[in-house]
Amino acid sequence: MSQGKFITLEGIDGAGKSTQLAWIADFLQRRGVNVVVTREPGGTQLGEKMRALLLDTRLTMHPETEVLLMFAARREHLDKVIFPALARGDWVVSDRFTDASFAYQGGGRQVNSTKLENLEQWVQGVFQPDLTLYFDVSVALGQQRTASIKPADRFEQEQTEFFQRTRAAYLTRVEKYPERIHLIDASRPLQKVHEAVRDTLEILFFQK
Amino acid sequence: MSQGKFITLEGIDGAGKSTQLAWIADFLQRRGVNVVVTREPGGTQLGEKMRALLLDTRLTMHPETEVLLMFAARREHLDKVIFPALARGDWVVSDRFTDASFAYQGGGRQVNSTKLENLEQWVQGVFQPDLTLYFDVSVALGQQRTASIKPADRFEQEQTEFFQRTRAAYLTRVEKYPERIHLIDASRPLQKVHEAVRDTLEILFFQK
Repeated sequence: MSQGKFITLEGIDGAGKSTQLAWIADFLQRRGVNVVVTREPGGTQLGEKMRALLLDTRLTMHPETEVLLMFAARREHLDKVIFPALARGDWVVSDRFTDASFAYQGGGRQVNSTKLENLEQWVQGVFQPDLTLYFDVSVALGQQRTASIKPADRFEQEQTEFFQRTRAAYLTRVEKYPERIHLIDASRPLQKVHEAVRDTLEILFFQK
Repeated sequence: MSQGKFITLEGIDGAGKSTQLAWIADFLQRRGVNVVVTREPGGTQLGEKMRALLLDTRLTMHPETEVLLMFAARREHLDKVIFPALARGDWVVSDRFTDASFAYQGGGRQVNSTKLENLEQWVQGVFQPDLTLYFDVSVALGQQRTASIKPADRFEQEQTEFFQRTRAAYLTRVEKYPERIHLIDASRPLQKVHEAVRDTLEILFFQK
């Protein structure tokens, strides 16, 4: 039995990750792959409780507390969901992973990226996704798409500058890890985005 | 205004920390010191929510998740309680701090101590307590004292071997940091323990 693949989806809110996540799971299942769909922060019973703390607008926290809590949830997620699924040969598709820490806490909250790298090494060693799809949209378009869908959580209620720094940090990650992270222009119509995702998956994983 | 002092109390359950904590706070207040009494994990609104997760017997977690969650609560505790109090010139007395991570997660759960040192450095840099009082009792005596006081939490329900490793790790800390950590033989009658604590505080902080 071959080892499964680990695919992560990244992007600011309104980039369309959720829609693509469902589409990707369906695409992979049609190719005979067992797919585990998950998300961060969260993905485990304990992690979802941590997620609730992280998103709670009534709580404040130091940016480094936020980082540690994110990585605590991630450690559990790796142990309980990601590693066991990959070991079974399943594929795992996660709505966000460590790149989001570099984008939101590193970019948005301006936590030192060396400190993030230290914690990444602490938690996951050399383990990385096989593929990261970064769905890129402008902050304005992201905000337009998410406007008034639901009450804003502790991140969503941040100001425009926060999301601009977050997007910039994502784009820096794309430049730094061109082999792993594929930028998808998510400002295009849904069908075009699906096609770009499909082409990427086909070329990387299903080429004859 | 002089910088306050940071005093931490350590020991396995049943060592009598709670009784000593109240006594120390009273002792310091009589000497005209403003005292902030706090505890770990916890000490902040968010930290107490993390404490509830850490002690919840219905939850399981990877030992490294436990470590990260402990240090997340600690980062918040430093930011919201400990650093501001010391900056005001108050004294802070905390029921447990980082030595407990080396004892419980390092000793008890057998997490690599280098990983703990890395995280200690990440969260608190070179910051350390001015004094740590380690209340030493045998595991048997600790268990005898805590028997049937209240339902056991996720740590208290561990086996004897866990607490033996925890106590051994505390004793290793005492040997490693003899200047900072003072061992108090807490198997003696309460009055004798108070006297030992009083003598230590007098000599270190209130000598004419």
